[in-house]
Amino acid sequence: MREIRFLLIGLGNLGRRFCELLAEKDAWLQERYGLALRLVGAADSRGTAYSPDGLRPALVAQFKREGHSIADYPGVGQPGGSALALVMSAEADLLLEASPVNLSQGAEPGLSCIRAAMRRGMHVSTPNKGPLVIAFRELHELADACGVKLRFDGTVAGGLPAINLGQRELRGAIVECLEAVPNLVTGYIMDLLSEGVVWDAALERARNEGVLEADASWDLEGWDAAAKLVILVNAVLGYPARLEDVERTGLAAVSVAELQAARERGSRYRLLAKAERVDGGVRLSVQPVALTRDHPLGNLGRKQMGVVYHTDIFGSITAFIEELTPVPSAASMLRDILDIFA
Amino acid sequence: MREIRFLLIGLGNLGRRFCELLAEKDAWLQERYGLALRLVGAADSRGTAYSPDGLRPALVAQFKREGHSIADYPGVGQPGGSALALVMSAEADLLLEASPVNLSQGAEPGLSCIRAAMRRGMHVSTPNKGPLVIAFRELHELADACGVKLRFDGTVAGGLPAINLGQRELRGAIVECLEAVPNLVTGYIMDLLSEGVVWDAALERARNEGVLEADASWDLEGWDAAAKLVILVNAVLGYPARLEDVERTGLAAVSVAELQAARERGSRYRLLAKAERVDGGVRLSVQPVALTRDHPLGNLGRKQMGVVYHTDIFGSITAFIEELTPVPSAASMLRDILDIFA
Repeated sequence: MREIRFLLIGLGNLGRRFCELLAEKDAWLQERYGLALRLVGAADSRGTAYSPDGLRPALVAQFKREGHSIADYPGVGQPGGSALALVMSAEADLLLEASPVNLSQGAEPGLSCIRAAMRRGMHVSTPNKGPLVIAFRELHELADACGVKLRFDGTVAGGLPAINLGQRELRGAIVECLEAVPNLVTGYIMDLLSEGVVWDAALERARNEGVLEADASWDLEGWDAAAKLVILVNAVLGYPARLEDVERTGLAAVSVAELQAARERGSRYRLLAKAERVDGGVRLSVQPVALTRDHPLGNLGRKQMGVVYHTDIFGSITAFIEELTPVPSAASMLRDILDIFA
Repeated sequence: MREIRFLLIGLGNLGRRFCELLAEKDAWLQERYGLALRLVGAADSRGTAYSPDGLRPALVAQFKREGHSIADYPGVGQPGGSALALVMSAEADLLLEASPVNLSQGAEPGLSCIRAAMRRGMHVSTPNKGPLVIAFRELHELADACGVKLRFDGTVAGGLPAINLGQRELRGAIVECLEAVPNLVTGYIMDLLSEGVVWDAALERARNEGVLEADASWDLEGWDAAAKLVILVNAVLGYPARLEDVERTGLAAVSVAELQAARERGSRYRLLAKAERVDGGVRLSVQPVALTRDHPLGNLGRKQMGVVYHTDIFGSITAFIEELTPVPSAASMLRDILDIFA
């Protein structure tokens, strides 16, 4: 049995659900993979808790469901404690960085936490896009220099192993073009609009379903899809794409009449992220596109995200996921962990 | 630069195309992965050739395209030489076993060649279903005992990494059910029948496209799909399924009227291979099923194969491939090789 001491930064939708997942699967993971995952430290926006003897994931999840902070954890909670201070001082083998994406503040505090963890010899798994978008190459070089592993399969398309598929299973091939529908809420909203739901009501329904980011423009203007595209292209095409390289068109560019006309001819609008190799580089775009049913991503339902790789020797390979809850996105950290340790 | 000396058994559709692929990609593979793949021995049904200095893949492919045997290879060809004798005597690091599936003769000579290669310390990659269907566990135990790797990603659904996806990316999850459309020609024939093409003409067209096995019953009666299902279930579910455990229904069970009615309501018949966990085991079936467009595999075109994994924590994950030529199936051996050595 190998014990893995880990820190968890961010106890929102993903962090909390990872705690629930771990509480449920702990015994089985020990039996099946010989790994005992021990949560020794955690942080949310209000504070931290640290205990070398371990925090109870089920209790942490319960606290968060009830609206408390990790800082309230009996005995070891630290109101006002910072995530970075926790990473700098805790003894751990692994950091799970699951704080919300925050590009406007330089992807902090996630980026600093990841750097600090790697310098202290911790492996890192993160579903947080921010640090990878801003510092993809730097973080990979740092991981190599520190002799640790960096995994981020959950940054793109939730629980779909889009990155691993592209990085591992397409070796030997040239990916000539990739297309992805990596964002759920934009497809959902366009479907509602095409059915005659008015804009404000569509947004309201998306919000009620909890699928819209607090800052709606992040989704609606294609920033989320663009960030995911940048990570995919760096990881799979090995091309140093940056967010500002993406030609980005948001939902506002398509009219309700166009959405309805597409629906009537059996097509579905989706916010399509696309990367094509062109002379000397890669052309990157995010825009609403009416996908016919013959398109590999043209049949995605409202809870489905997917990616297509067009290759020279493996034909076209498509993968998509149906994610009815945020559990698969949280589970991406478990995939990363098993990839690192098992 | 690492040199990998390999043997190639079987120079039909897959073996020959692998030679073409290698001729084309050789320099790039050396540069990109630091691997120099040197074909030192090859066998077809008429003989063998062996040269420690290497055979030229482009020349081997040309011989086969022109209807010659590898036994005609200048200087080192051995008419009547056997594949097994080659494996028993050659110095090599890797066996590619690409001979045609042959279950009626105990998957020979492939099975013996694989056993012999592993005992002699060679890694093995094979797209040949026979040996895996007959001796999945034995071959895995032998590989462990010999300290070599056995890869067989090409046995199921051609160039789609169906097995790797299930084995690697779904770790931590329970696969509760899997569904696959792993055979191209049956879907093609049912599509033609549904369009009013008569049975004999549909078969003729399938034959002309080169997608029907010499023994048509292998495809039409579902044996091919059943064999692939058995391998998938062994590999991904870890359940020791055997061919005789599969409840198998061939194309003859569905009438043209049913095919046409399905087409009219927008559904597509496909030969669906399915494994469901039930109390104390796994229920395995292969049968023609009318898939609605809402089914994850309900939109597969005539050149597309796919698989769906229904899991506890990763939702439902679907992957499919569009294979317009046999190149992706041949390329599955390159995927295996990079998995073993890179």
